[in-house]
Amino acid sequence: MGFSVTILGNSSAKPTPTAHPSSQVVNLNEQYYLMDAGEGVQQQLIRRGINPLRLRAVFISHLHGDHCFGLFPLISTLGLMGRRTPLVVYAPAPMGEILAHHMRYFDTDLPYEVKCIEVSTTEHKMIMENNTLEVWSIPLRHRVPTTGYLFREKQPPLNVDKWKIERYGLSIAQIVAAKRGEDICLDSGETIANSELTYIPYKARSYAYLSDTAYSPRAAERIKGVDLLYHETTYANGDSMWARGRGHSTTIEAAKVAVMAEAERLIIGHFSSRYKQPESLVEECRTIFPNSHIATEGETFTIEEKR
Amino acid sequence: MGFSVTILGNSSAKPTPTAHPSSQVVNLNEQYYLMDAGEGVQQQLIRRGINPLRLRAVFISHLHGDHCFGLFPLISTLGLMGRRTPLVVYAPAPMGEILAHHMRYFDTDLPYEVKCIEVSTTEHKMIMENNTLEVWSIPLRHRVPTTGYLFREKQPPLNVDKWKIERYGLSIAQIVAAKRGEDICLDSGETIANSELTYIPYKARSYAYLSDTAYSPRAAERIKGVDLLYHETTYANGDSMWARGRGHSTTIEAAKVAVMAEAERLIIGHFSSRYKQPESLVEECRTIFPNSHIATEGETFTIEEKR
Repeated sequence: MGFSVTILGNSSAKPTPTAHPSSQVVNLNEQYYLMDAGEGVQQQLIRRGINPLRLRAVFISHLHGDHCFGLFPLISTLGLMGRRTPLVVYAPAPMGEILAHHMRYFDTDLPYEVKCIEVSTTEHKMIMENNTLEVWSIPLRHRVPTTGYLFREKQPPLNVDKWKIERYGLSIAQIVAAKRGEDICLDSGETIANSELTYIPYKARSYAYLSDTAYSPRAAERIKGVDLLYHETTYANGDSMWARGRGHSTTIEAAKVAVMAEAERLIIGHFSSRYKQPESLVEECRTIFPNSHIATEGETFTIEEKR
Repeated sequence: MGFSVTILGNSSAKPTPTAHPSSQVVNLNEQYYLMDAGEGVQQQLIRRGINPLRLRAVFISHLHGDHCFGLFPLISTLGLMGRRTPLVVYAPAPMGEILAHHMRYFDTDLPYEVKCIEVSTTEHKMIMENNTLEVWSIPLRHRVPTTGYLFREKQPPLNVDKWKIERYGLSIAQIVAAKRGEDICLDSGETIANSELTYIPYKARSYAYLSDTAYSPRAAERIKGVDLLYHETTYANGDSMWARGRGHSTTIEAAKVAVMAEAERLIIGHFSSRYKQPESLVEECRTIFPNSHIATEGETFTIEEKR
């Protein structure tokens, strides 16, 4: 099952001629979820070959314009494209109110429903669940109420060992029962423990999106063992005064969170426009967390299946 | 004195990978005015080397998202950039209300004032005036209340003929009086008519922005003699059924308006995403109005001074 994150924008609020504000797409088994929606996100989706109609839900971290001003044009365009499926928007309050105002003035005749689910920015809890996925909120520390999101893949269904099927002569019904996790009673009367017959095809994977935030060891605890971590690094280590004043993180702080979380891989973004070369930022991260990468626009980070 | 129009976006509502929705900048003697503000306009300004802080005012034609969703991020960015001068936004109602809601949620601590002046979409009248310029509203025919805008340069100050200054031995005070349009009484007692001493350095110029609109001969009357006309051509001539149904114009209709208005030059834009080659659209216009041009993004159309 595919699990990947495609970067649509990696800059902070001040616009530059080429970079776009925060947006990413999480793709779990061809189910697409938008993480933040900076200005221009609909065009960025199209440029990356992602049909906006495929989006299942949008997750907004906080109500600063560079994280959500692209949502409103996207909502209109989905209407033009004839969407019928409801679009769920997860976001801190008062996004419900903001969307209601928006709909009153701009999208009065949408052919689909926009459902807003307001997310608490002070609680760490599961906010969405389906067959393959749980999404958890991660309280963050920023100038306005902000939440990160943790995407936790559910344990994939058990596989039944082919050799064991042959050895015990299992019927289809017995295989299905074994996949459900049951022990199997053979015709001989012998009971075979489920663990003898099955194996987990790969470990459930996870992705954490932490932006925008000041340094937060508590957030690190809540994403322990995460496979892929996106953490904002608005500032270089030398500009930590700025980071502190503006509720942002430095490179070293992001890397520390990755170490504490025992993350496998770190991607960084939300760069201040003052840095012309993000390479120098990622080099700082690598001094304490070697597996650090720049969230380059258009790049897709795949979380591979692992036994 | 420079008078030019730079195209920032020329597409209609459906996003494409490269084109941007409606936006232009009028530059009259280094005073910059934004015409509509489609999504991404702040980035388009920066790409074209235009500092957003230089904008004096914004003119919004109507409250469809592809003409105004870029205004809100621009307002935030001007705050980040430390603007102090008020920004005036001319737009149909209820833009005042919409901006008030926006400010409540997003730009609560702007260092400058956003003044909204709501423009009637049923009256042709002067809505702005300064030393060099008048701006007039042009009622248009669209699905929602819409106004075009006519930029009329004021008559430039009179020049005094150098040879006449010499011939009559005019003093500085007499030259200044002549520039004000006064007749001059010489020391000899002789009175020289102002028209004998002065000339108009060039004819006052004008620019009309008509978008979005169905075919409107009345609009053509109101911009009679315009030097440069931007008229939307969402559809090709063969798709006139679509144009009619959606309150838009075809190429031939735009060209007819240019003919009726006795315009000197026509630029066309707001192309439907169905047309991959706008060249075919401008060719249609040229069959009845030869001086027709595509509003190519990034192109600047200069209105030259003419005697």
